[in-house]
Formats: sequence, C-alpha cells, structure tokens
Amino acid sequence: MKLVCTQSDLNTNLSLVSRAVPSRPTHPVLANVLLVADEENQRVNLTAFDLSLGIRTSFAAEVTGGGSFTIPAKLLNDIVSRLPDGEITLEDEAGDDGTAYIAYLTCSSGSYQVRGMGSEEFPELPAIEGGTILNLRPEALIEGLKGTLFATSPDEAKQVLAGVHLKVLKDCLEFAATDGHRLAVVQTANEKAEGEETEQEFEVTVPAKALREVERMLVMRQWTEPVTLHFEQGQVVFEWADQRLTTRTLEGQYPAYRQLIPPSFERQITMDRRSFLSAVERIAVFADQKNNILKCSINAVNQEITLSVDAQDVGSGKESLPAQISGESIDIAFNVKYLIDILKTAQSPEIQLQLNGALAPVIFQPLGGVNATFLVMPVQLRA
Amino acid sequence: MKLVCTQSDLNTNLSLVSRAVPSRPTHPVLANVLLVADEENQRVNLTAFDLSLGIRTSFAAEVTGGGSFTIPAKLLNDIVSRLPDGEITLEDEAGDDGTAYIAYLTCSSGSYQVRGMGSEEFPELPAIEGGTILNLRPEALIEGLKGTLFATSPDEAKQVLAGVHLKVLKDCLEFAATDGHRLAVVQTANEKAEGEETEQEFEVTVPAKALREVERMLVMRQWTEPVTLHFEQGQVVFEWADQRLTTRTLEGQYPAYRQLIPPSFERQITMDRRSFLSAVERIAVFADQKNNILKCSINAVNQEITLSVDAQDVGSGKESLPAQISGESIDIAFNVKYLIDILKTAQSPEIQLQLNGALAPVIFQPLGGVNATFLVMPVQLRA
Repeated sequence: MKLVCTQSDLNTNLSLVSRAVPSRPTHPVLANVLLVADEENQRVNLTAFDLSLGIRTSFAAEVTGGGSFTIPAKLLNDIVSRLPDGEITLEDEAGDDGTAYIAYLTCSSGSYQVRGMGSEEFPELPAIEGGTILNLRPEALIEGLKGTLFATSPDEAKQVLAGVHLKVLKDCLEFAATDGHRLAVVQTANEKAEGEETEQEFEVTVPAKALREVERMLVMRQWTEPVTLHFEQGQVVFEWADQRLTTRTLEGQYPAYRQLIPPSFERQITMDRRSFLSAVERIAVFADQKNNILKCSINAVNQEITLSVDAQDVGSGKESLPAQISGESIDIAFNVKYLIDILKTAQSPEIQLQLNGALAPVIFQPLGGVNATFLVMPVQLRA
Repeated sequence: MKLVCTQSDLNTNLSLVSRAVPSRPTHPVLANVLLVADEENQRVNLTAFDLSLGIRTSFAAEVTGGGSFTIPAKLLNDIVSRLPDGEITLEDEAGDDGTAYIAYLTCSSGSYQVRGMGSEEFPELPAIEGGTILNLRPEALIEGLKGTLFATSPDEAKQVLAGVHLKVLKDCLEFAATDGHRLAVVQTANEKAEGEETEQEFEVTVPAKALREVERMLVMRQWTEPVTLHFEQGQVVFEWADQRLTTRTLEGQYPAYRQLIPPSFERQITMDRRSFLSAVERIAVFADQKNNILKCSINAVNQEITLSVDAQDVGSGKESLPAQISGESIDIAFNVKYLIDILKTAQSPEIQLQLNGALAPVIFQPLGGVNATFLVMPVQLRA
C-alpha cells in the first residue's frame, strides 16, 4: 500500500473519525483507525468504530498501491496534527510474523514509523441493505438536535431516555427527548425533493452520543445538501458527502410524551428571553447553596415576575422583570438548572410560559423561529 | 457603611484580589474579602489574604458612610460578575448578635443580601516598616519572571526550590530558578531613577505562586511606572498604582547555582529556535511512550542535528535540522519536557547550545533579546 495526500486532508479526516475511537477499547484494534487506500478511485477511507458508533470519511489522495491496515488513532492524530503543511507519504509493510504491520510516514520534516495491525482484525461497520431510506434537510436535523439533545439523560443505563426519539411524519420531523424530569419536543418541516416517493411514517430512538457527532459534523462542514438516513431494525446510518455515521438504535418503548403536555392552561406569561435568562443566572448563585430551587412569583396585577432565592446561611437575592401575564397570580418554583437549559436552548427573542397549578407541568415555548415545546415539572416550595 | 461604585470597578478588583483567597481556608474569614470604605478619600479597598500571599487593591467610589466588613469572596464575585453594567450600591448592617454582618447590594437588576463577618476577624496584612526599598522597572520584572518561573519546583515542600531567587546587583537584577533538574538564570538591566540613592545589594527568594500573580497583574494592567519593592526579613511587598501584593519569603540558603555552569565548552551549536521546537514537539509524541527521552545526534560533518525516538512497541520518529556546529560530533539525550519548556521560554529567533560531554550540563541561551541562561542535565542513553 502506498499513498500521497496533504497534511490538512489527513489531519481533518483523522480528527473527524477519532470521535468514534473508544477511550477504553474492549479490543486493542478498536483503538486504531482503519485506513483503506482505493487505487481505482484514488481515494482514502478512514473508519473508526466503538462497536456502537462508527464514523467513516473519505478524501482524495494519490494512491499508487491499494490496500488497507489499521494504526493507533491517538498516536497518528498526535503526529499528523503537528506536521507542517504539505505532502505526506504513507506506506505499510507487514511485520515478520505477518500480523504486526508497520506504517511508514514520510514528509518534509522527517520520517516516522508507527506499529499497526492488519485490517482483517477490524470489525465490519454494520451494512444496511434495504430498510427505510429518507432524505433530511441538514438545517432541519440540526435544529431538531439543538433543541432536544440537552434534555436527554446522560446515564446510558436509562436506555431510551439516553437518546433522542425521532419521528418521521408526513411533512415534518419530530424530535423528542426526556430524562424523566423534563421534556423537549421540536418539530421541523421536512420538504421532499421533487419526485421523491412518500415514505411511510416511522420512528426510532438514537443515542445522544451519536447524534451529538452528527450535529457537530454537519455544523462543521456547513453542509446544505440532504442527509440520507438509512434505517433498519437496530441500526441507523446518516450519510452525506463523503461522510457516513453508523449507530445502533436504542431498543424499547419510548414514553408517550404527548400525554404529558396538558391540553389547556389557566395562565400564560410572555417574557423577554435574554433578560429572564440573565436574571435566573444571577439568582442561581444563591440557589447553588439551596438545592438549586428558585421561586417565581407571578404577579398578574403588576404584570411582573419576581425571582427569588433565600439561602438563610449565605444570603438572598431578588429580581423583578416585566411580563405579559394572563390568568391569576401564583407562586411557583423551579430547578434553576432546568430553567437555564431551556432559556439557553430557546434562542428566540421572547419566550412564553403556560401553566395551570403550582405543581402541574409548565410549558415553555420560544415565540417565533423554531417550533419547540419544553416541559418542566415545578418543585414544591417549602415555606 | 454605604458606597456607590460601578459594576466594572467592583468586578475587576474583586477578580484581582480573589487570587489570594485560599481554596481551603484554615479559618472561615479567610474565604472572605475585606472591604474598607474610606469616606475621606472616597475610595474602596479590597483585600484577600491566605496568610502567605495577600493582595490589596483600591478604586474610586462615592462613599457616604465609611466602615469595613468582610464578604464571602466567591459568592460576591459570582454575583457581581453577572450584574449588568451600571451603578451598584453596597451597604452593611450588623446582625442581631453584633457579629453576623449582612451586606446589601442593590443595582438596576435587583437586590441581593450576603451574609458576611466583621472586619475585626480578618488578619492584618504584614506591614513593613523600614527595611530595604527599591524601584524596579515593570518590564525588567516581567522579563525576569517569564524567563525563570517555569523552572521552579511545583512542590512547596521543596522550600527555596519552589521560589524564584531575586538578586539585586549594582545595575541589574538577576532572577534564578531551579527544581534540581534544570536551572534558569535571567539578568535584566535595572536603571535607577535620577537622584535615587544606590541601594545595597541584596537577595531574596520569593514563592513562585506570588510571583505568578505579580506577573499576571502587571501584564494585565500594562503598567509602565516603577514597581516599588519593600523587603524586610520574612516579607516582601510589591507595590504599584493602587495595587499591593504582600508575600512571605522562602527561608533557607539558595543553591550556589553559578557553580553549576561550566566555565568553558568543547562544543557550540546554533539553531533556529522555532524549527527546533516544532521538531521536538513532533518527536515528543513517541517520547511520551518511552520515559520522555529524546536522542539528539549532533553531526559536525553535515552540520545538522538529528532528533530521534525509538519506542519499540509503538513506533519511531526521526527528524534532521540544519545547525551551525563547532566541535566534534556527539550523541546526547534529553528529557523532552525540559527541552520544550526552554525552547518555548526563549522567545528569540535563534538559540545557542553549549556543551562538553554527553553527561555534562548543557547550556541553552537565546541569541539576542533577553540575557538568559538555561541549564539542563542530559540523560543517559540506553543502547
């Protein structure tokens, strides 16, 4: 195998796939990146796979000898990222025992040898034959992920709660995430390309970890062409340009989250999102000292909301903000962290709250822009 | 006590003194910042003190009632840094038992109360009466600190080795630091102000922790007027503008470091510093895997240096760089970390190495710019 490529191509693509290299590989070869040199197409493929998440990218190179082998991802990344701009030559040579490969890397600054392993030890990325195929607008995908990923559970043992539930409906995509304390639902339009067949409706739950990579890669590439999604029982593949991300899906019944959203509300409040967020962040300094609970006194007469925390031992804070309030005055309390997450995610100039009682679910919706619904359970206020 | 000041003044000065607030205070009041409102001068003083390092700053304020009290530094900092631009009013009130003070902070966004403690519990910063006084150019001080702080020992149990040794000579300042494996010595000119008396020569060892703050504060303020240094047995005070940093000195005999520098050398090498640094950083990727040892083959015939690491299990790297070499060829090995520290600190376009044998001290000197000497002990090369 022999190829010549640029430092920047190799470096960019290595950093991309490296995100799928496990930090504690269960098998030594999983700490490696699989490099395939394709002489016919004059391209190089890089693949990393942690047995759940797999990333493959390809880039153009001058391939004078096809072949494949695997190299420790971190070591190769560390070297290549420090090399000067310019051409890099990569060659391999099977070791004496036929399995311990050595990769020879040469460039203007010097020469480096890295011990690798044969490609036959590297697990195959799951291939999807048939299954459901559909095209997604990258902006719709990014919007949906940005609006929901924060509400997934960080605990992988929580099964489906550690993922985003994606529903493909007739003309839109619906993203949902809940960690059991809060819920985020985003709907985005998904126009079809002309002549495209109407797909059947379907739903799937995808691990947050893989979706964070999808979001990151799409944003980084500023990709605007449709992303192809292949779905078959147990696996999803996202594919665009010369990149491909494979992930297992999360099995199990996703909670019937629509039932959690009350059908009607007794109170509605509209506020400037940024002022609300800044005030919550300041008052949060005291809430840190007191179970992170923030009190919101909604005053319909004065048309203002007063945020306060009284942490006896250390001090207290109080801020009032103007708000358009319909319905009666009420006191309600929230976990500060959940409030901050929603107010940061919402993006819109204004945010609308809808609620019934002090212990019933509260709905937050950005006004204008994204069609998102955030639900938070209030907490009990101790006098 | 009552005062009105701007958010930006309070915020800037709080972050400055906060560096002297201990993370694990031995007494609760040390986690606080002392605030003194001076009605006569219409100024506010802030002080933090960890019993070794003390920082005091002052700024203008509208003081309508003089007085003093202490407030938890982190909490106050967290709130003030999040407040909007504009005026802040601070008032205090003694608690019911006369000791638990409450500070009332009011501004356009809201009002906050923070529980503090009386100022009588806050330890006095050591005062220096008499002692040696001298003026230092801030650029000379910054240059000397930048060139030596990296070579101090991070281990405070190492006594004087955890500090920089400062010698005030007739017309110059000499800074020295050594952790036992390497040595850095920087001399900087210290012109005297006109009419200033010639001070006696003296020397003192100051903790690296305090000097890092001095460097940081001077660089941040871009201060150009002389810094006054007061020195008395056991204490040093650095003073400039409205800022003052007090620190205990490190007691004990400082190593006679000049003796470590060989009087003559058999070999001299001059190299481009940046190329040398980049090459070392790349080869360091392999050295990570092998006790951080890097081999330098100095080839007088070809006038080049070859850097290499052979980490059997993972791979190897080799780079050659042009160099002006006088003396015979030799192989020598270094700890990569020490080499990188020196090459980063040196700053100059070119660097000069001087050495005798493969196991004798090697001297590095930047060519042009700072008058600095770095000494490193080579390590033994195993075949």
